[in-house]
Amino acid sequence: MPIMKIAQVSPLFERVPPKAYGGTERVISYLTEELVRQGHEVTLFASGDSITAARLVAPLAQSMRPDQKSQGWLAYHTIQMDQVMALADSFDVIHFHTDYLHFALAKALRLPHLTTVHGRLDLPELAPLYRHFREMPLVSISDSQRTPQPQANWLETVYHGLPPELYSFQPDNGNYFAFIGRISPEKRVDRAIDIALECDMRLYIAAKIDPADEAYFNEQIKPRLKEPLIEYIGEIGEREKRELLGHANALLFPIDWPEPFGLVMIESFACGTPVIAYRHGSIPEIMEHGVTGFVVSSQEEAIRAARDIGALDRKRCREVFERRFTAAHMAEHYLAAYQRVARERAAPAEGRPSRYVIQ
Amino acid sequence: MPIMKIAQVSPLFERVPPKAYGGTERVISYLTEELVRQGHEVTLFASGDSITAARLVAPLAQSMRPDQKSQGWLAYHTIQMDQVMALADSFDVIHFHTDYLHFALAKALRLPHLTTVHGRLDLPELAPLYRHFREMPLVSISDSQRTPQPQANWLETVYHGLPPELYSFQPDNGNYFAFIGRISPEKRVDRAIDIALECDMRLYIAAKIDPADEAYFNEQIKPRLKEPLIEYIGEIGEREKRELLGHANALLFPIDWPEPFGLVMIESFACGTPVIAYRHGSIPEIMEHGVTGFVVSSQEEAIRAARDIGALDRKRCREVFERRFTAAHMAEHYLAAYQRVARERAAPAEGRPSRYVIQ
Repeated sequence: MPIMKIAQVSPLFERVPPKAYGGTERVISYLTEELVRQGHEVTLFASGDSITAARLVAPLAQSMRPDQKSQGWLAYHTIQMDQVMALADSFDVIHFHTDYLHFALAKALRLPHLTTVHGRLDLPELAPLYRHFREMPLVSISDSQRTPQPQANWLETVYHGLPPELYSFQPDNGNYFAFIGRISPEKRVDRAIDIALECDMRLYIAAKIDPADEAYFNEQIKPRLKEPLIEYIGEIGEREKRELLGHANALLFPIDWPEPFGLVMIESFACGTPVIAYRHGSIPEIMEHGVTGFVVSSQEEAIRAARDIGALDRKRCREVFERRFTAAHMAEHYLAAYQRVARERAAPAEGRPSRYVIQ
Repeated sequence: MPIMKIAQVSPLFERVPPKAYGGTERVISYLTEELVRQGHEVTLFASGDSITAARLVAPLAQSMRPDQKSQGWLAYHTIQMDQVMALADSFDVIHFHTDYLHFALAKALRLPHLTTVHGRLDLPELAPLYRHFREMPLVSISDSQRTPQPQANWLETVYHGLPPELYSFQPDNGNYFAFIGRISPEKRVDRAIDIALECDMRLYIAAKIDPADEAYFNEQIKPRLKEPLIEYIGEIGEREKRELLGHANALLFPIDWPEPFGLVMIESFACGTPVIAYRHGSIPEIMEHGVTGFVVSSQEEAIRAARDIGALDRKRCREVFERRFTAAHMAEHYLAAYQRVARERAAPAEGRPSRYVIQ
């Protein structure tokens, strides 16, 4: 594999990697550090408090999340786009993680680029957007994520990956289930509570509550936390997460929405902890039913799966992680896509029209 | 004056011209129609419900204000920018009214362009933005507007202008004062009420109340509307505004913030109605003290001015409007700026570096 000159363009909402929550910036960090480790020349466009072995170019000193009230996010992203343009000629490929902020620019300048779409694609304004920019080269984080915009120019699906040492394999379990993430109606912690109670198992709930979900939490979930088997432990850091996830008999992931990926599932596999997940969005792609856990469609199935979970081999969960979901695996797939983009640029298609003539 | 090929790029929040409130889109409409009237080839990039004699290019059918909850505004503006790019080579000049959305794009493509800044410039994120993009050619709507960003590349100040037939001269007055605009702390309708009461004059208040200002209205202003001389008539349309403004003895404009222009002042001049305005922002530039009204710095001065207002000649207000604030006058100044931009593009400065080399 020849050395490539690669730009990674991150949102500015969290530093890379983020201090706490922030799936997109975490994945950008894992990918960036792995590419550097492999010897590629990587420039990371991100907030100035980011921590990276790549060259860092920052339009502002601190990431913006602490200052959520600021309407200024677009101003800083506009500066960032200009910083990318100023160096654009020095890259073989520019990898954007910034939604569609760069679409008009990347198209007009015919940059060698691709965009990983990190979020959901079913918002109403995205249909006309992706129709208009149908030639933008996109990477999905699961095949399922593409469903609302099938006509877009999907290059590839590249699954997220983690550094293999981040979560270590835990052979033993502590006789409890875990629920990790957010408390919100589509995450269905209520189902997780029911599953644990039916199996007479302890459930630890490690989850943050967004302001928008406080009423839901207070009305629907809080009354159920009185059960002696159910323990709500709030938002936790990386270290506690490794502990909690590593010793769980299973991660319960009873979602009720089209999850585009589900990073916590592969964190669980890395520990050797199997997952019980509802069949939505990316789940059938990420899970190996009967190996890394069980994919279910009803509470009846979920409870049966939870009772049978001890029959699964935790070592095989880790093996699946190592085979499919490491940062090296992710980087390998991205590098193949980068080379395709760079090749197409070097040898443009016969008669391809130059849409914009630049003075 | 040779025929020019001109693009006008409007925000998509209101149609051009707007149905009700929307100063930016109104001015864009006046400028566009005047340029067409003079024989220029004008393309207007705006929402599809806009009404214009120019060629209209629209990224969406309806302007977005009715659907304020939509987070999709950036998606439609991104499509719009690409529509501008697709036609960019056919214009002598591209006139942006879209804040800074196009900055990275216009700079990277070295488009022949300029940007009218319609809003205030003292927001915290704008200092790094304008510092970074210090070469962007900008037009201010008053000299005063530039104060927070003096280092930017200000080409020109071009005052707003109106079609001369929009407001007709009204020689007689109806023995009342008018206050027109919004009820908000910085507009100081409380001062207008005090001035009217001191002069024993009727005051008509035609103003909308934004949701953010409802508490202020209820607590500070509503109790004062019980005075028999004070009449609050809510938000009014163009026709009622012409009536109300045309027959007022004076428009009271006792603002307490750095107003970048103040469109209602020149509407008032067009009717022959003088203005009593506090010395802030653009006021000393727009007003001719002792001719189109009085510029004041205290309530004492304002009350004296209100008592003396009959001494001013309404005909001279209209004359000042016709000399300085017509759409034709505005178009003449913009055309001079357009020609400068187009000339600079045709003959680039010796040795000017091409910052971005485009494949």
